[in-house]
Amino acid sequence: MGGGAKEELGVVESREWYLSAYAPDGVPTSDHLKLRTLSLSLGPDSIPDQHVAVQLLWISVDPYLRSRMTGHEDGLYFSQFDLNQVLTEFGIGRVIRSKSSEFTEGDIVINPFSPVAEYCVVPTAFLRKVDPTSGISLPDYLSSLGVPGFTAWVGIEVLGNPKPGSNVFISAAAGGVGMFAGQLAKLKGCRVIGSTGSDEKVKLLKEEFGYDDAFNYNKETDFDAALSKYFPNGIDIYFENVGGKMLEAVLNHVNQGARIPLCGMISQYNKVWTEREGVRNLLNMVGKEVKMQGFLVGSYLDRFGDFMKEMEAYLKEGKVRSKHKVFSGIESFLESFSSLFSSSNSGKVVIQVI
Amino acid sequence: MGGGAKEELGVVESREWYLSAYAPDGVPTSDHLKLRTLSLSLGPDSIPDQHVAVQLLWISVDPYLRSRMTGHEDGLYFSQFDLNQVLTEFGIGRVIRSKSSEFTEGDIVINPFSPVAEYCVVPTAFLRKVDPTSGISLPDYLSSLGVPGFTAWVGIEVLGNPKPGSNVFISAAAGGVGMFAGQLAKLKGCRVIGSTGSDEKVKLLKEEFGYDDAFNYNKETDFDAALSKYFPNGIDIYFENVGGKMLEAVLNHVNQGARIPLCGMISQYNKVWTEREGVRNLLNMVGKEVKMQGFLVGSYLDRFGDFMKEMEAYLKEGKVRSKHKVFSGIESFLESFSSLFSSSNSGKVVIQVI
Repeated sequence: MGGGAKEELGVVESREWYLSAYAPDGVPTSDHLKLRTLSLSLGPDSIPDQHVAVQLLWISVDPYLRSRMTGHEDGLYFSQFDLNQVLTEFGIGRVIRSKSSEFTEGDIVINPFSPVAEYCVVPTAFLRKVDPTSGISLPDYLSSLGVPGFTAWVGIEVLGNPKPGSNVFISAAAGGVGMFAGQLAKLKGCRVIGSTGSDEKVKLLKEEFGYDDAFNYNKETDFDAALSKYFPNGIDIYFENVGGKMLEAVLNHVNQGARIPLCGMISQYNKVWTEREGVRNLLNMVGKEVKMQGFLVGSYLDRFGDFMKEMEAYLKEGKVRSKHKVFSGIESFLESFSSLFSSSNSGKVVIQVI
Repeated sequence: MGGGAKEELGVVESREWYLSAYAPDGVPTSDHLKLRTLSLSLGPDSIPDQHVAVQLLWISVDPYLRSRMTGHEDGLYFSQFDLNQVLTEFGIGRVIRSKSSEFTEGDIVINPFSPVAEYCVVPTAFLRKVDPTSGISLPDYLSSLGVPGFTAWVGIEVLGNPKPGSNVFISAAAGGVGMFAGQLAKLKGCRVIGSTGSDEKVKLLKEEFGYDDAFNYNKETDFDAALSKYFPNGIDIYFENVGGKMLEAVLNHVNQGARIPLCGMISQYNKVWTEREGVRNLLNMVGKEVKMQGFLVGSYLDRFGDFMKEMEAYLKEGKVRSKHKVFSGIESFLESFSSLFSSSNSGKVVIQVI
């Protein structure tokens, strides 16, 4: 474990991750993502006005980052990381020095543009304080109450139009977004089935997250047969996280007027688009009047308050559970990131920095 | 020319088309579609109460019929025609004998379930009278004021959300639906580009239907390059009539929040689904937040009155023009139907029976 504050916060050594080369396809490796150590001056004169120095506690690790490492637009359209610049992600940290009247040392803050680092000096404009006495765990602010929870909420409650008894299918169901999508659909009275990558996660979905049933797509590899079995009455809402063959199979089982919120297509991220799996049965959308809609949560920020109110209540009442896959130490970033594409994870992937 | 009324309408010989064998793929031929002659008794005792005898004048010929001839569900989900039963389509005819107080001899009626025949005896429940003095031509009731016009209106005005300056792309633009979709978008102040299958039709779109520009997909076969050229500012609305490679190309040119009403996918109708062209870049829908929605006009019948009012006004003011590809005589049905898949037509295909 490297890094650490030196006496009186004069200078700290801080490790940070940066992109050394773009990866057009495949899962990025140590050829692309590298760790380096910086000496960061935290002396009173080193911090600009309206900035704070932060020691990172938790960092979120999300699939969409993949699209910022390809070197070209790839269908998710987030801007590309600059080569040799530190990566950024959602992070939670403790203010250790402040040049702002709004923040004091000891404050716990969330930063949507945090460097993937141990320490940083950042502007206060995008920081939000967290109340550490709320009874809600810090990583929950990166999962149930963060982007994954909000993404699940937009997909299910805003776009999915769930009704009691609706037949809902969630892919990547034990992932950071899927686990909340399924729980929110259950709370609306739906019948919810998930697909996931291991028997252990099938068990988790049924026993921990209240899914009505779930299947392991690595075992039940004939998706069409699986959906026939789990959806004898067809699918009303498909929360799409994976794309490709799974989406094609779903379109053979949709009910009239089905909704397909498109959150992401993780099975396709590591391929250039011409190598991606083509979906051959979109014509089914005509006869079944299916609505398929891509979304980015940034377009729904006017609903964030509604979401927070609802989700905080669910958490306090124990109606929504979250699960985190915790990697330890900033050095674990590469391992944590590649795990997203391995079907080995369950829950929201986060790094506990210290 | 066969058929014709015998003296005092005792018995007529009427030719009609029926399906003798399902065609799972390819364009149906005389192996599947056959003409036969029936003797139809029109004597006073032969017509049940609440029925009328009709001599057909005009019959609509529509691509969706293809999906009723495959012998299996194919993504459009209309019921299959029964073998050896007469085909049905929208038809306009003259009442020649009535057993209903609502209809009298000489009335011109539209029947959405008309036999594809020269004469028929049908229940009055689904008949609607046409005012022959309205100044609107009879085939217009099968095109601009019929299902094609209503389909274009639902796709553009209900689902497309057109704004002045929106960039609108219409495929199969000179077809029975496309020609109205483009004109309606122009009336909303949009910039409208069409794709079609011949230079002659490109000219028609620009000179007759007011398209801003159009291209021949048989000449400009690199659709991606064509769309780069015609949509330097991207596509806001794509009225989808063809599917496959054209849809894939469009998804590389969509703007944020683009709408894609799915009317049909005629390039894919004659293939079983596993042989259809896969669309590989649906991931673009996520980052661009695209909404793609299949629709059947039967679900929007509550808006039919709004449509009729608007379209009748447009027709009377000369703001919408229609064009019909007229085939003559009931015997032309097979030729007229296969022409739908040949890219040789422009305008709405109809048969003038007499």
